[in-house]
Amino acid sequence: MTTGVRRRMGVEERRQQLIGVALELFSRRSPDEVSIDEIASAAGISRPLVYHYFPGKLSLYEAALKRAAEDLAGRFVEPAEGPLGARLLRVMGRFFDFVEEHGPGFSALMRGGPAVGSSTTNALIDSVRQAAYEQIIAHLRVPEPPARLELVVRSWISLAESTALIWLDGRRIPREELQTQLVHDFAALMAVSAAFDDEMGALVRRVLADEPADGPFSDLVTRLISLAS
Amino acid sequence: MTTGVRRRMGVEERRQQLIGVALELFSRRSPDEVSIDEIASAAGISRPLVYHYFPGKLSLYEAALKRAAEDLAGRFVEPAEGPLGARLLRVMGRFFDFVEEHGPGFSALMRGGPAVGSSTTNALIDSVRQAAYEQIIAHLRVPEPPARLELVVRSWISLAESTALIWLDGRRIPREELQTQLVHDFAALMAVSAAFDDEMGALVRRVLADEPADGPFSDLVTRLISLAS
Repeated sequence: MTTGVRRRMGVEERRQQLIGVALELFSRRSPDEVSIDEIASAAGISRPLVYHYFPGKLSLYEAALKRAAEDLAGRFVEPAEGPLGARLLRVMGRFFDFVEEHGPGFSALMRGGPAVGSSTTNALIDSVRQAAYEQIIAHLRVPEPPARLELVVRSWISLAESTALIWLDGRRIPREELQTQLVHDFAALMAVSAAFDDEMGALVRRVLADEPADGPFSDLVTRLISLAS
Repeated sequence: MTTGVRRRMGVEERRQQLIGVALELFSRRSPDEVSIDEIASAAGISRPLVYHYFPGKLSLYEAALKRAAEDLAGRFVEPAEGPLGARLLRVMGRFFDFVEEHGPGFSALMRGGPAVGSSTTNALIDSVRQAAYEQIIAHLRVPEPPARLELVVRSWISLAESTALIWLDGRRIPREELQTQLVHDFAALMAVSAAFDDEMGALVRRVLADEPADGPFSDLVTRLISLAS
């Protein structure tokens, strides 16, 4: 029955295929530069058929972004086992994997602009930030995060985003170094907040108590002491 | 001659007045919620006359944003005198003044969206970030900033932006505390980078050598040592 006959896809299957093709193209170049013709050609179908599944480029872009957002949020999930520093370092590795896979599309999205600045795309970005925030809070085991902890975690997430964007712009620093640096930055921002607030101080003491003597935090502290001397 | 007769404004004077009125309204509420009718009413002129000076709300918004961007960039200018920590603390005070004066408009702008995400608005945001970056580099007296320094300064600027945005969302932490915290954060991020890179290490040593024994950096270090013990 199938000999010489190209199997016809179902509606949902075709939609998913188009989303995958579009995500691939939107990841490699700025969305402004990707045309529906190009997506149709890459998917091996006609331009009108693309419009049959998606009313326009924006809706296809948003569907691709939704898939990317779910993918990225999934990479933040890390078993609650072992020292926190090592967990965060693994998450940073997967975050930079994602950034590397979707470089130009990630830059265009995070730098904003008419093609990518819809309320839907902004809501998707916020949902990923929220997923990252909730993961970190869960790992810190703080059921009701105080305002200072929320500030440190959320502002560190924006630090991680901008570090990745700056890295993409020329890749002048090895990404492995930046992954470690962001883990250290997290510890440093926590410590700065903890130095002036008892509640944060108690939290940081509890977290650091679980860190191994040969882990990244101990390494950082040793180096900082040597720098200060 | 002027008795009972309202003085007629020149074209440029009227444009500047409209920009001022619009900036005031765009600062207090999200640009989406401000209508041309409202701007006309606040300026005491007719709606068609507004359109005579500005073709649409976006162009008036962009003109208002340009004025705000110049205002903010001006607040980063600080005499190259005295310890660096104290200079940065004064700049942070003026930055939070600006954020407080333009709260809702600042939030709407930085969170993006269709009404504010034009390429012109993005270029204006980038120009302010660049002005902040150049000021900091000038104060550090580094003619050719290495990639690691550029990364620390630019990513810290995004940390300052997100800290201000989180503060605006509920104002649960006193702004004076956050101004100091951001100065400490800058020192902490520099130190993290310096701990693993000799060039950054030399730079941080030179900067810290000029800091007073009773300044904010010394205070932070003392508190961090007490936290770690």
